[in-house]
Amino acid sequence: MSDKYLVVSSDGHAGLRAADYRPYVDPEYRAAFDAALPIQVEMTERMSKMFLVDDINKDWRKGQDEGLSGAWDPSARDKVLDADGVAAEVLFPDGITEMNSPPFGAGFSMGTDGLTAELQWAGCRAHNRWMSEFVSTAPERRIGLACIPVLWDIPTAVENITWAKENGLSGIILPPMWGNFEAYHHPKYDPVWAACQDLDMPIHFHSGPSPAKDYFCGAPMDPDAVVPDGAVGAYVTEVHLWLVRPLTFMLWGGAFERFPKLKVAMTEGTSIWVPEYLALLEQRYSVTHYAQKMGDFRSHLSMSPADYFRRNVMVGASCMPRREAEMRYEIGVDKIMWGTDYPHPEGSWPYTVDQRVETFRDLPDDEIAQMVGGNAADFYGVDTEKLAPLVARIGPDKSSFQLGS
Amino acid sequence: MSDKYLVVSSDGHAGLRAADYRPYVDPEYRAAFDAALPIQVEMTERMSKMFLVDDINKDWRKGQDEGLSGAWDPSARDKVLDADGVAAEVLFPDGITEMNSPPFGAGFSMGTDGLTAELQWAGCRAHNRWMSEFVSTAPERRIGLACIPVLWDIPTAVENITWAKENGLSGIILPPMWGNFEAYHHPKYDPVWAACQDLDMPIHFHSGPSPAKDYFCGAPMDPDAVVPDGAVGAYVTEVHLWLVRPLTFMLWGGAFERFPKLKVAMTEGTSIWVPEYLALLEQRYSVTHYAQKMGDFRSHLSMSPADYFRRNVMVGASCMPRREAEMRYEIGVDKIMWGTDYPHPEGSWPYTVDQRVETFRDLPDDEIAQMVGGNAADFYGVDTEKLAPLVARIGPDKSSFQLGS
Repeated sequence: MSDKYLVVSSDGHAGLRAADYRPYVDPEYRAAFDAALPIQVEMTERMSKMFLVDDINKDWRKGQDEGLSGAWDPSARDKVLDADGVAAEVLFPDGITEMNSPPFGAGFSMGTDGLTAELQWAGCRAHNRWMSEFVSTAPERRIGLACIPVLWDIPTAVENITWAKENGLSGIILPPMWGNFEAYHHPKYDPVWAACQDLDMPIHFHSGPSPAKDYFCGAPMDPDAVVPDGAVGAYVTEVHLWLVRPLTFMLWGGAFERFPKLKVAMTEGTSIWVPEYLALLEQRYSVTHYAQKMGDFRSHLSMSPADYFRRNVMVGASCMPRREAEMRYEIGVDKIMWGTDYPHPEGSWPYTVDQRVETFRDLPDDEIAQMVGGNAADFYGVDTEKLAPLVARIGPDKSSFQLGS
Repeated sequence: MSDKYLVVSSDGHAGLRAADYRPYVDPEYRAAFDAALPIQVEMTERMSKMFLVDDINKDWRKGQDEGLSGAWDPSARDKVLDADGVAAEVLFPDGITEMNSPPFGAGFSMGTDGLTAELQWAGCRAHNRWMSEFVSTAPERRIGLACIPVLWDIPTAVENITWAKENGLSGIILPPMWGNFEAYHHPKYDPVWAACQDLDMPIHFHSGPSPAKDYFCGAPMDPDAVVPDGAVGAYVTEVHLWLVRPLTFMLWGGAFERFPKLKVAMTEGTSIWVPEYLALLEQRYSVTHYAQKMGDFRSHLSMSPADYFRRNVMVGASCMPRREAEMRYEIGVDKIMWGTDYPHPEGSWPYTVDQRVETFRDLPDDEIAQMVGGNAADFYGVDTEKLAPLVARIGPDKSSFQLGS
């Protein structure tokens, strides 16, 4: 038995600086790319100013140029991973507040408003191509995800999922908000669920997207909009809701009934919602007088939605505070996949080593092992034998978590 | 000390049969009323068929004509209240699945889509006039609420709140979903909060409204729409979210900071969300590394949003299962206001007496007293002295809750 932990981060972000995506875009969309680029850059800057945090983020970035370039540079990235003791990590695209988002809204941060199918697919293909290349620089360490804007078109989605599997990617990310499209209980998505099950490609939803106009009253699209006090507080209080909704529809719609090996990960939405969510699903699924007015809404399911959750769903617990580790039995020790969110400013980097100890200190060895990497290694089929020498070199000492406090 | 409980139901529904609202509508809107009536009736029937529960509800209604007529008939209502041991109750308008909804979407079940300001105000005035009359038949028992479609127009809202106070109503109900309007953190609502505080008119949000197209994919508006499996399960799992959102915006926006005596009741959304909601508010309010990217979003508040909740907010716990009584310390024994939801089929009537015992059996006397009526009596300023003889006659025996199991 090793005295080091195998650490797998369930939440990393990688992507090129916006302009650098150009060569990865299909030639016929490069003119559109050139036209969209300055708008994308301006919107990102406006959003950064809107949050009034330009200075905070500038401070945070100071002296971190090399670490930040790990978003696109494999050797810079591996230096950070090594220092943080992270053997492998799941790779999402970058978020909207960063300067390196994929083109044409392909990172799903903005929903579908103002986008077209053709361009969003083109943006996703560009990012997925680059991600496939990036993964190939260290395939045993990089669990790369493909962006699949499934709402527009099911056959194209299946085609792109197949391409992703054939090109070294290990799962997909779907838009958590469906706008005016059908929600994820709709049977139209069945071919996608079938492909993901057959190819063993876990589906990911990642927090971030929201009905932004509710909070920000038109900003940043409208440069004159005034953002009321409380906008950010309401957003951070609700952000996990928009993440969890797709799962609620999949669970009740029977996706896991028809596709029992389908795998889903819910990432960066905290894990504190899990206990009450499971209790609520059980309560709603149980027969009660109070629900009878609604008729029989359960006969298409052979088990409770909470049981599908326990069987098919994992939680990507980025930015995980101590409280979530203390709730681990209610959440499920086998459900929690710790993550860094590197290189995002809300993530643990560059304080990962200390924050990880703070989160897990003095918990039983085997439980820490599950949460910091074992669960993710199982879920993604990580080649632990191949990683063993790396873990021996960079993995955090188990003893460093036992402070006896 | 009495051996009977003072029982106040925090959730009752009252309204005329749709056609009977005509004389309460301003004369200039009666032609519109006549045109809208058959559409309203047809949509209600279509919705009832959509849920495939026509038969269930017909069975439930059998032999209950007199009890059901308590929705609009004071003496029929009082018979039910007396039999159920309910001394006083809060009166909301009727919901969309019933045949007695106020005109022009004035019950807020449908959001604002397809409505106009002029007509929705006219519908609300009609309902509020009738409600004022209805309350006057037994003012000590009836805590009548005025429907205030505040989204359209703030001065008109303040005017109608003042009218409601002057005409015997005891609080207001606001639309929980704001559609394309500003959410409830916006300072434009301050005159409404000021009026409610100054007139001691508690604000109510009541569950029910939702982004229905997410669940029902166009039904019942589109008669050809096919409702996917899981629609109802997802709806009942999420229904409390749409109720809680307005409060999240009010808490973070500082409504209770600027108006410290403002009172809010959250009704028929269960109370099981409360403990995790408070923990989440505390977590989001506390300073953490993870939130620094968002800048300072707390300096306009002198205390945590969870503390405003504890001071200013009550929970109308209709259809309250045993589990919620068992969670009472986490929720707050002083926050829970039990309710019947009479005369709705998901409510406890006609089994209120037995279900109430099932929910509260063997709990400490003083805690039952708070939850079944004491909390509500305080919140609404019920005249308990005036009700004492009624309570002595109809109130449930305290001993009937002590089964020693």
